[in-house]
Amino acid sequence: MGSADGTRKGQSIAEIVADRAQVSRAAVSRAFNPKAPLRADKRALVLQIAEELSYVPNMAGRALATQRSHLVGVIVPHVCSPWEGIEIDALTTALQARGFATLLFKTQIDRSLDPKLLSYMRAYNPDSVVVFTENVPPDQLHRAFDQAVPVYVDYPDEATDPGPPPESAMNRFDCLRVLQRDGIEQAVALLSGFGRRRIAYLAGHPKAQANVARLRTLQQVLAARGLPPAAVIEGDFSYQRGYDATLELFRAGPGAEAIFAANDVSAFGALDALRHSLGLRVPDAVSVVGFDDIDQAAWRSYDLTTIKIDVEERVAALVRLILQRLQHRTAPPLTETIRTKLVVRGTVG
Amino acid sequence: MGSADGTRKGQSIAEIVADRAQVSRAAVSRAFNPKAPLRADKRALVLQIAEELSYVPNMAGRALATQRSHLVGVIVPHVCSPWEGIEIDALTTALQARGFATLLFKTQIDRSLDPKLLSYMRAYNPDSVVVFTENVPPDQLHRAFDQAVPVYVDYPDEATDPGPPPESAMNRFDCLRVLQRDGIEQAVALLSGFGRRRIAYLAGHPKAQANVARLRTLQQVLAARGLPPAAVIEGDFSYQRGYDATLELFRAGPGAEAIFAANDVSAFGALDALRHSLGLRVPDAVSVVGFDDIDQAAWRSYDLTTIKIDVEERVAALVRLILQRLQHRTAPPLTETIRTKLVVRGTVG
Repeated sequence: MGSADGTRKGQSIAEIVADRAQVSRAAVSRAFNPKAPLRADKRALVLQIAEELSYVPNMAGRALATQRSHLVGVIVPHVCSPWEGIEIDALTTALQARGFATLLFKTQIDRSLDPKLLSYMRAYNPDSVVVFTENVPPDQLHRAFDQAVPVYVDYPDEATDPGPPPESAMNRFDCLRVLQRDGIEQAVALLSGFGRRRIAYLAGHPKAQANVARLRTLQQVLAARGLPPAAVIEGDFSYQRGYDATLELFRAGPGAEAIFAANDVSAFGALDALRHSLGLRVPDAVSVVGFDDIDQAAWRSYDLTTIKIDVEERVAALVRLILQRLQHRTAPPLTETIRTKLVVRGTVG
Repeated sequence: MGSADGTRKGQSIAEIVADRAQVSRAAVSRAFNPKAPLRADKRALVLQIAEELSYVPNMAGRALATQRSHLVGVIVPHVCSPWEGIEIDALTTALQARGFATLLFKTQIDRSLDPKLLSYMRAYNPDSVVVFTENVPPDQLHRAFDQAVPVYVDYPDEATDPGPPPESAMNRFDCLRVLQRDGIEQAVALLSGFGRRRIAYLAGHPKAQANVARLRTLQQVLAARGLPPAAVIEGDFSYQRGYDATLELFRAGPGAEAIFAANDVSAFGALDALRHSLGLRVPDAVSVVGFDDIDQAAWRSYDLTTIKIDVEERVAALVRLILQRLQHRTAPPLTETIRTKLVVRGTVG
């Protein structure tokens, strides 16, 4: 029996919205999903009536009904990093525009993923998981998720493996392949053009795949040009370690004509040690190259020549992988590839 | 009828775990919630059996059953900021340890909250919402959430309002009150002790409450010491604007004996403009004070004297507010208060 306002007892608000808009209950759900097909005028009408009734669909109920949580898990290491801040910022903005929210998870500082964290993440049933930490073993991620197909950031050995990842190890993963060789070749060419031969590699965290791949590619590029291999200084991506390691290299060690740092933040530490503690001019006495091109690299106190990973391009590739996989759950592994390039500023000359 | 492995047909995995651990179904749920009461030996047994069976509770189902999503929404402005990166990092770590995940939402760049974003957030049914953007109107947040009681970061006028927020406007909000006066008084005392009288305030975003409160308190403190009011230079918290505004102040304007910046990042811009474009020595010719004490403030190229907001203390206060409110849904408004202090480095002298 109808009431004065045209609603029936026991009717849900969603059903009232559907009645008033003269659409099906399913169309009401689709109206709230920017990616679901629905005629534009119907979508506008449903959203207008829903707003009048202060109606929003409940994600938890929707997740049980559709097997979609509209959540994307992002695993970041327990390390404060400007690069990660920028990437999470851009990824959250891009996903939000597509109707997904970003769920952040922090790993341990040694970058090994706690299995308890995986159980905890699994309970939220994310539609996808993006793994920033380079050393979470694929099989561990594989076991953790039934539905979500993780997106794995990979730094392949470009000398031996120019193709997509082998099916056997990666068949439950999609892959963002970061090819670092272009930018490293450009940096070595620039250093070599300014006569720098004795290069020290200021390493990042020894377990980070990005660091291992940077060193490997640098040595390949130096060898291909007939230059001596880089001396390796232990580091951990931090400013303080970059600073201390540079002092050790020049006070107790043999010094270098150029420092090639595994990331911008440790390059800033190296620059400050050279200029403010060792009294060495950059680039006259020593050249410095960084990696990432974070905002601070362009600040006047540093003005760092660095190898750029384009964060917009990287995030766009991640979003494409996430959306393609949600449309085709059983498709073979998906791959996107991005490249690096040198940004020339004032620290090489 | 039982099967060979002791389970009954139609039994859920959660019920199997409960049977094997000889506890109730409710105790199984409690075992997965670090804050729920359960004897330690029972909790360990449940978790062990659950692991053997690869069982984890589904948050979506649990959210419908318990009205708890175990999600904490965090609203951040669409501005890349090292301070926000550090705070989100610390907050995520602290919440994760308590069994909550952080759900990130980005607002528009003008820091006005899009009402659509509130509907979108509401659909995830967060247990709590932390508002970093200082200018989301309380009544807008009030209307958006039935369950979650938002935590509002407030910068009160300490000259006129030393008490908790008035019940009328804030009665659906809990409050983290940041008292900025201590640090500002210490900074002005230091500047005054070095004979600096003509102070320029390099402003932050004009709509940010933190910026408005910093300027208001600075002028109160200067007046109380019989010093002339600070000249205000328009800014937006960014490095580039801090750089450009400082060039304008010294090239076209009257200059200043000290620059008091609304945040560290714009102070770095001011320092680089003074040293690298204007050829002015810091602190000999001009002193500079920042606000926040982010990691970069300690880097040798900047070595910035700045007013510290202790991020660990701030995050601990936020977590206390969130947990207290979840235990006492109908309690009167909760308030936590933190203070600031000056960190003396090399840019005042």
